[in-house]
Amino acid sequence: MPNTFGKLFTISTWGESHGGGVGVVVDGCPANLPLSEEDIQPELDRRRPGQSEITTPRKEADQVQILSGVYEGKTTGTPISMLVFNKDARPGAYAEMKEKFRPSHADYTYQTKYGHRNPEGGGRSSARETIGRVAAAAIAKKILTLKSNVETLAFVQKIQDIAMPSMDAISSAAIEANIVRCPHEETANAMIDRIKELRSQGDSVGGIVECRIRNLPIGLGEPVFDRFEADLAKAMLSLPATKGFEIGSGFEGTLLKGSENNDAFENRDGEIRASSNRSGGVQGGITNGEEVYFRVAFKPTATILQLQKTVDLEGNETELMGRGRHDPCVLPRAVPIVEAMANLVVLDHWMRHIAQNDSFKF
Amino acid sequence: MPNTFGKLFTISTWGESHGGGVGVVVDGCPANLPLSEEDIQPELDRRRPGQSEITTPRKEADQVQILSGVYEGKTTGTPISMLVFNKDARPGAYAEMKEKFRPSHADYTYQTKYGHRNPEGGGRSSARETIGRVAAAAIAKKILTLKSNVETLAFVQKIQDIAMPSMDAISSAAIEANIVRCPHEETANAMIDRIKELRSQGDSVGGIVECRIRNLPIGLGEPVFDRFEADLAKAMLSLPATKGFEIGSGFEGTLLKGSENNDAFENRDGEIRASSNRSGGVQGGITNGEEVYFRVAFKPTATILQLQKTVDLEGNETELMGRGRHDPCVLPRAVPIVEAMANLVVLDHWMRHIAQNDSFKF
Amino acid sequence: MPNTFGKLFTISTWGESHGGGVGVVVDGCPANLPLSEEDIQPELDRRRPGQSEITTPRKEADQVQILSGVYEGKTTGTPISMLVFNKDARPGAYAEMKEKFRPSHADYTYQTKYGHRNPEGGGRSSARETIGRVAAAAIAKKILTLKSNVETLAFVQKIQDIAMPSMDAISSAAIEANIVRCPHEETANAMIDRIKELRSQGDSVGGIVECRIRNLPIGLGEPVFDRFEADLAKAMLSLPATKGFEIGSGFEGTLLKGSENNDAFENRDGEIRASSNRSGGVQGGITNGEEVYFRVAFKPTATILQLQKTVDLEGNETELMGRGRHDPCVLPRAVPIVEAMANLVVLDHWMRHIAQNDSFKF
Amino acid sequence: MPNTFGKLFTISTWGESHGGGVGVVVDGCPANLPLSEEDIQPELDRRRPGQSEITTPRKEADQVQILSGVYEGKTTGTPISMLVFNKDARPGAYAEMKEKFRPSHADYTYQTKYGHRNPEGGGRSSARETIGRVAAAAIAKKILTLKSNVETLAFVQKIQDIAMPSMDAISSAAIEANIVRCPHEETANAMIDRIKELRSQGDSVGGIVECRIRNLPIGLGEPVFDRFEADLAKAMLSLPATKGFEIGSGFEGTLLKGSENNDAFENRDGEIRASSNRSGGVQGGITNGEEVYFRVAFKPTATILQLQKTVDLEGNETELMGRGRHDPCVLPRAVPIVEAMANLVVLDHWMRHIAQNDSFKF
Repeated sequence: MPNTFGKLFTISTWGESHGGGVGVVVDGCPANLPLSEEDIQPELDRRRPGQSEITTPRKEADQVQILSGVYEGKTTGTPISMLVFNKDARPGAYAEMKEKFRPSHADYTYQTKYGHRNPEGGGRSSARETIGRVAAAAIAKKILTLKSNVETLAFVQKIQDIAMPSMDAISSAAIEANIVRCPHEETANAMIDRIKELRSQGDSVGGIVECRIRNLPIGLGEPVFDRFEADLAKAMLSLPATKGFEIGSGFEGTLLKGSENNDAFENRDGEIRASSNRSGGVQGGITNGEEVYFRVAFKPTATILQLQKTVDLEGNETELMGRGRHDPCVLPRAVPIVEAMANLVVLDHWMRHIAQNDSFKF
Repeated sequence: MPNTFGKLFTISTWGESHGGGVGVVVDGCPANLPLSEEDIQPELDRRRPGQSEITTPRKEADQVQILSGVYEGKTTGTPISMLVFNKDARPGAYAEMKEKFRPSHADYTYQTKYGHRNPEGGGRSSARETIGRVAAAAIAKKILTLKSNVETLAFVQKIQDIAMPSMDAISSAAIEANIVRCPHEETANAMIDRIKELRSQGDSVGGIVECRIRNLPIGLGEPVFDRFEADLAKAMLSLPATKGFEIGSGFEGTLLKGSENNDAFENRDGEIRASSNRSGGVQGGITNGEEVYFRVAFKPTATILQLQKTVDLEGNETELMGRGRHDPCVLPRAVPIVEAMANLVVLDHWMRHIAQNDSFKF
Repeated sequence: MPNTFGKLFTISTWGESHGGGVGVVVDGCPANLPLSEEDIQPELDRRRPGQSEITTPRKEADQVQILSGVYEGKTTGTPISMLVFNKDARPGAYAEMKEKFRPSHADYTYQTKYGHRNPEGGGRSSARETIGRVAAAAIAKKILTLKSNVETLAFVQKIQDIAMPSMDAISSAAIEANIVRCPHEETANAMIDRIKELRSQGDSVGGIVECRIRNLPIGLGEPVFDRFEADLAKAMLSLPATKGFEIGSGFEGTLLKGSENNDAFENRDGEIRASSNRSGGVQGGITNGEEVYFRVAFKPTATILQLQKTVDLEGNETELMGRGRHDPCVLPRAVPIVEAMANLVVLDHWMRHIAQNDSFKF
Repeated sequence: MPNTFGKLFTISTWGESHGGGVGVVVDGCPANLPLSEEDIQPELDRRRPGQSEITTPRKEADQVQILSGVYEGKTTGTPISMLVFNKDARPGAYAEMKEKFRPSHADYTYQTKYGHRNPEGGGRSSARETIGRVAAAAIAKKILTLKSNVETLAFVQKIQDIAMPSMDAISSAAIEANIVRCPHEETANAMIDRIKELRSQGDSVGGIVECRIRNLPIGLGEPVFDRFEADLAKAMLSLPATKGFEIGSGFEGTLLKGSENNDAFENRDGEIRASSNRSGGVQGGITNGEEVYFRVAFKPTATILQLQKTVDLEGNETELMGRGRHDPCVLPRAVPIVEAMANLVVLDHWMRHIAQNDSFKF
């Protein structure tokens, strides 16, 4: 089931950029959770197009409807089906894309794999598919918020070579204070300038989203294949435009010696804690109670408003001029999506942990 | 099923470093494949301890037995159970590890998650668990070798700051020509010196393993969650000591503009090909016929022969002196394991592709 | 994922009897299959309420919409989302059902398991959920029809003690020739009379649906847990109101001696065939090329228009008078649902067979 | 994964009748459970061959070894691998079976599906495979025994037409008091005589095993596909030689009117209870706190010591004389296997129930 994610809190997304709509079915949600569209919409608003001057001007209200699984304002333990109808479609705009493969897009691989594809807006390969993920994760987030202190915060850490300085305390408010979603104001401004500059050249940029998860319980993640970080890595690499994932000391940590990279244990106020956190909150695939932090590399948007060499369906060499309304940089809108996937991993692993470890306690 | 990997060619590993043995059950292997222990053993020999002067001196022949699924030298389509008995166990050596948590190991998280653990040699968190993966992947490799030109080659690309230069053509022979498994001889020598130097200090080092997969068919990988690179990322992050994964232009690619990072299409001798390969052989989660290449960050071995601060089971602060026979650098032995996981991902996705796309062809 | 069925051709149903609607997401459908609502609607029409004088008078057009996975009339290999909005809801009719548990319904168990339920029309436990199954199976049926000679025919074999005589050749036309869907006209008339008689008493009846699958290939089904008949049994017992399943000689076969029950093999016109078919088309869990036939026991409809003893939410003993518009006998409408589940099992197992056995052929 | 059963407490069996051995890997067992071979062996002894004069004289001690997942007498939460080596193999005895297909066995379907099979003792299709199931279920039983009052008792209810009378209270002692495992002594004696009589004719018999599960909590089972009875049905039909399953009023219930078949609710000593139990302890797919009882039809053993018509590998018609050491009636040994599968379903569903319903309680 390639369109399903999670083992106990499972989400199945469906829909194309320009078909009837996009949606998700959530299976495994606990009953009695108060839930309405108002819990979902704010997260969708954070990812929707047209929200700022550095995102695509495409206009989609992305209004969500809950079609099942909720009765009189509370979940019933049955599947929750959520749907967003597509609105702002311009089929005519895609005539050329039907014939020519956009470089570094999924057009060619979808065409070859399936022999038939929906070319409008990228069809299923469009980031529009993530609406279903974000809607489902809004439920996960509500559960975590009501039942724990877990806080998941993603933010833009780097755009090209513009990196924010190291910051310990990062708030949701600081992230949302600017349109690029970098919590360091000065850096944010430089990032915004860079994005605008590249866009004015018909070009695009990429960068790094960092995500931190605080107040996790000890014990999430399962050896050996379903390590917490393995499922995070899969979740992140399943997002469009991602090319890398690292947790804790990551690639930089490979430069250190063991004696430098190891996290000593200490007794801090009666609790066993790691003195440092180069492990990134996981050891042996299992959360150790420290902050989980990881970084995701997003490539520059493949769609650029420049003439590019490519081939057509018959393999003839040709050129393609980028059209359509696209983000010059996906990272600001990727922030809520990274958070969404992280929250899905957290909740699913938490339920799995309870199932094995707290169900029949010896 | 946290100890199972793959959807159609599935492997389930079991066993601890110092229990009765380690093993794997392979479910979904096609019938009629000629198979014997001689197909498995060479891969296990590449990962076994004691194979060179820069690996752990622990002696384990790691002799594999096939217990089911093969009759008269050919597979029967039923589960293939493979077993390696543990031999060189020194239970006495682990008395201290039972009481004190080794820094940056899985001791503390296993203890907290499960309340009870096998501390000998790291128990289930030991890299010894990967024997089952390598044995299973040897079958996958044989299938790929007999039925395709797919070639998966991993090698040590970097130890700390010692990186090999960019090389186009890399052969298995060059990789196996030295004990560190870096195909560039001069770099390999520098790496070996560095590993010996650090080991003499009782310290350890990490680095980067690169893996390249050639001659893949177009079309492997499934949108949206089971992208080819997402499953590779999960596979790699499920390996002990890994902290990062990147594919194609990876983290470096975030520095480029879209116009620099995109791979134009061209018609090369009648075939649609990408002019460059910053995508790393995948577009939209699906292989595009170009070489898949990715890199995996391995942290320095957590076990060092130095005194480290830690706590005991009761939370009292104490110190622990690394003991036992350990690799000062896991990368040389990680090479066949990375290849193993890559081959498992390739074969499983290939079978999935056939199931959906070639089963009922319209 | 308790609301998902199938491993490669997977369907996930959602929706309640009286929520916003009911639907299904189909994942794993091959691409390029010509598909439109016209392929789905006829099957839904066979199961919809109000179709004859012996079914519930509830009026639902059950008009299906395809929301994704189809582009320009052909499938794209991506998830197919189908939706039927609920129309004829009468929320007021369910006030009493909210307070009192209907005997032999799911009210009490849902209430206790989840603590909160949608009581209107039975909510998720309503047979209305099977709309999603039938819609999904219409796709499976189309694939089987286009790519094989497989024919799946279910019919009402028995209502209470009124059983049709043994018939070899049964046609779809004969089944659809009467409103009870029994291919033997005389028996059908007796059944219809019985149903009307019981309904006039405010009572209900059950019976047996038989299903036959012809022209199956040899080799579907997998040892040991996913035997063809095991998955059929699960499929049938997952339907509302079912209490039993038997295949081949079934319960009657337990009266025979081995020498009477065994099916000898013979060479019929160059083909290996079974001389008799008490095995019911499966041996060792795998289809043997003979007709698969099985029977499903449906209990009498739990809703009766009589006063019954029960308790309320607080456990007080009380009485409940059946209301609402219900089928006095579920079997006529169960016929297309049994066919649907059978076709889903056939297609899924066929794809699984191909994946393991024809993908890499040795 | 056709050789795996269960979602949270999963078992993966492997092995053939006459290969190296048979075994099972259990994944998902809670940690800290006291466990040793002594917990497993008694259940294997109940199913092993040669245990009485009416079972096969084949001698197998079926001595189990635990190879992983247990440390110092307690489970560690990691996979438990269990192994039984095959001993009493007589490869020579199977020369004829290699060439000729035994009627109503899996020889022909395995040969056609896989193109290659292990013919010795039936290979993977042998009931010997159930050793792994029984070993795994012994762990499930221990968990249920330590943590609940659940009691699962299976017994032989009928051999051919010899049925025991209806009995309310059935004890394990009464079942184990005779070699046919029918708790009604007089009936047991008649059954034993019948089995001996048929065996003396070189023939075989079948019958019905009934199973009752007491003291289940309310709420096990999940709508809509993973109903408790659907998973029981699959579990039972996955056993060799089974042809039917019914729960509660089953096939007999189809003769009743709704007013006769319904189970009224009542308040019994402050508890909501069903006045009757024709539902068989499940409503809407979920346990309702009443006793779950179901019946499984086992066909007469296919191997008979008589000359039967069949064909050989090339399709030539020939005859085959049953040889080897076989059970004239599988039911006595099927009793512990039915119990095993029932306990696996109970525990798995219980863990699933907790995961969804008690993990994050609202």
